Amino acid sequence: MQSFNPPVRTLMGPGPSDVHPRVLQAMARPTIGHLDPAFISMMDETKEALQYAYQTENELTMPVSAPGSAGMETCFANLVEPGDKVIVCINGVFGNRMKENVTRLGGEAVIVEDKWGEAVSADKLEQALKENPDTIIVAFVHAETSTGAQSDAKKLCAIAHKYDCITIVDAVTSLAGTELRVDEWEIDAIYSGTQKCLSAPPGISPISFSERAIKKLTNRKTPVTSWFLDLNLVMGYWGKGAKRTYHHTAPVNTLYGLHESLVMLSEEGLENAWARHKANHQLLKSGLESLDIGFLVKEQDRLPQLNSVFIPEGVDDAAIRSTLLNDYNLEIGAGLGTLAGKVWRIGLMGYSARRENVLLCVSALKEIL
Amino acid sequence: MQSFNPPVRTLMGPGPSDVHPRVLQAMARPTIGHLDPAFISMMDETKEALQYAYQTENELTMPVSAPGSAGMETCFANLVEPGDKVIVCINGVFGNRMKENVTRLGGEAVIVEDKWGEAVSADKLEQALKENPDTIIVAFVHAETSTGAQSDAKKLCAIAHKYDCITIVDAVTSLAGTELRVDEWEIDAIYSGTQKCLSAPPGISPISFSERAIKKLTNRKTPVTSWFLDLNLVMGYWGKGAKRTYHHTAPVNTLYGLHESLVMLSEEGLENAWARHKANHQLLKSGLESLDIGFLVKEQDRLPQLNSVFIPEGVDDAAIRSTLLNDYNLEIGAGLGTLAGKVWRIGLMGYSARRENVLLCVSALKEIL
Repeated sequence: MQSFNPPVRTLMGPGPSDVHPRVLQAMARPTIGHLDPAFISMMDETKEALQYAYQTENELTMPVSAPGSAGMETCFANLVEPGDKVIVCINGVFGNRMKENVTRLGGEAVIVEDKWGEAVSADKLEQALKENPDTIIVAFVHAETSTGAQSDAKKLCAIAHKYDCITIVDAVTSLAGTELRVDEWEIDAIYSGTQKCLSAPPGISPISFSERAIKKLTNRKTPVTSWFLDLNLVMGYWGKGAKRTYHHTAPVNTLYGLHESLVMLSEEGLENAWARHKANHQLLKSGLESLDIGFLVKEQDRLPQLNSVFIPEGVDDAAIRSTLLNDYNLEIGAGLGTLAGKVWRIGLMGYSARRENVLLCVSALKEIL
Repeated sequence: MQSFNPPVRTLMGPGPSDVHPRVLQAMARPTIGHLDPAFISMMDETKEALQYAYQTENELTMPVSAPGSAGMETCFANLVEPGDKVIVCINGVFGNRMKENVTRLGGEAVIVEDKWGEAVSADKLEQALKENPDTIIVAFVHAETSTGAQSDAKKLCAIAHKYDCITIVDAVTSLAGTELRVDEWEIDAIYSGTQKCLSAPPGISPISFSERAIKKLTNRKTPVTSWFLDLNLVMGYWGKGAKRTYHHTAPVNTLYGLHESLVMLSEEGLENAWARHKANHQLLKSGLESLDIGFLVKEQDRLPQLNSVFIPEGVDDAAIRSTLLNDYNLEIGAGLGTLAGKVWRIGLMGYSARRENVLLCVSALKEIL
């Protein structure tokens, strides 16, 4: 058994994205204790920086010590009680995963379905709310990583609130890559991942809960099934003040990486980061159009950072991805579920959203197609 | 907001332990995709090396993508169904946490209690099994991190099996620090952490399931409540063969760190690592005895890697730990629960179990007491 020296790739799949050398260096700094006062100061800075990234003043804004899927589960496990009716909007893989969460927790899931590649329909949601006046929660994906479609989170939240529901929003792929304003859009519970547009290594899931969500949590009749994800306990460690209670051992070095990526975000400015993602998407779009490669999602609903594009007729999906990886050290993503073999997913996330990456990707595809 | 440069500490608390520079460097290697063939090879090596560390041939041996508490929850959430009777042996904080897991999952917990600082009593366990013939699972902590007591896992498992129960064992602090033989001792489900005697950064929990445990999982009548921890799904990604199904995004860089720490373990040899922990414990013991500092746990049940020692009369617990941290950059641990203010916990785990650390700790205590 020998040390592992990974190949150096350019990561243009659906995540993880390329990690900036500054963030990698931060990961290698000496480990300190999870109750060390120096570490606690860093935790506080991280929480503030996440509030900035999410555009929120929610006090309960923090990184969950596990990947995005656990962030999703944190939201559902804390907010859904057995018997709760939850409307889940499904327009891709991650909506389906939300439904799985609801039913495993004993909730009743009502599905609002849209085609993969389309945005969630506000009209269908409103219709479902009218038909199910006892609904308590509305859940949807802001940026569907499986398709690259973006939904109008502000509008969907407004409808949910009109019917007195709280909202759970998946922002795994949107945070720091495209416009997202938690307070202004009145999102109640939101989760994301570090390995997408924040370009920190995978393994952490930033979440944020509004006062409305905290009220639902506080008024639970049953304990949260998961001890590890129970925010009542987690906040004893991540909450306010100098005194922190041990809950679990925080992933110290991965949090160093997240902190550094948030320093870089504050240096660039959030709106500049959104603009950079958009500009590189435009560049990619022109390049792909010159190769006659079209997009799955119609223009107005397209995410700049996740581009689902049709695999040209007669082209061997796996062979091309394999050639890109082996001969160009370039990773692009396969289609998921019903889109497998039909689309590629080209990511422009975080540090991967750079002009040189776009040029590499387009010219490599040109050479081998 | 500025980059975080942690102070350089010597970590002699209950974990995280000091991380070797080779492991820190591994964390900083370029991130690659979680489905990259190069990454999958590394995953396979990691699984094999964990089998070695656990002394098992269990095929289901893998790292859970979250800290030790999530490893605990993985075992309980997959094996306990509502109504299952589970005997939980409690002799410290982590036995209590096991009970919390059982009851939140709808299981019925029967408690076998021993004093904090003592080993789990085999007689009491057998008595409880006689009184509760419908028990399905026996759970106990091999190495109680809150007290430094070690229990006879082999004997406890033999008793459990005599009554047709499967066993769940907490090895967070024992793995790679003290003798542990999963197959020979017939442990059915076991979990640990990376931040103790493996000296990898925190955030990962290695687990192993025997055939007997897998049978219980396969025969479940209800789905696992946690989608994130459901091993039926997780094994689609971590299982055998070249084809891996995406479940969640693995914590790529933290796994680099774990892999490197396992390379170092294979270089040293498992039994040599056990012996090193023991030798440094002896050295610490002599040093502390010269300062009239005594141990909480009686000699035969003492863990070499976690030393709970009585705080001398009239000494200010927090002030001393603070001085050690600020003036010597040395972290030792506080007492937990009922032992708060009464003991210190001095860890000698993994890369922290070095002669120079023992000498520093003893001489620093000598100076300030």
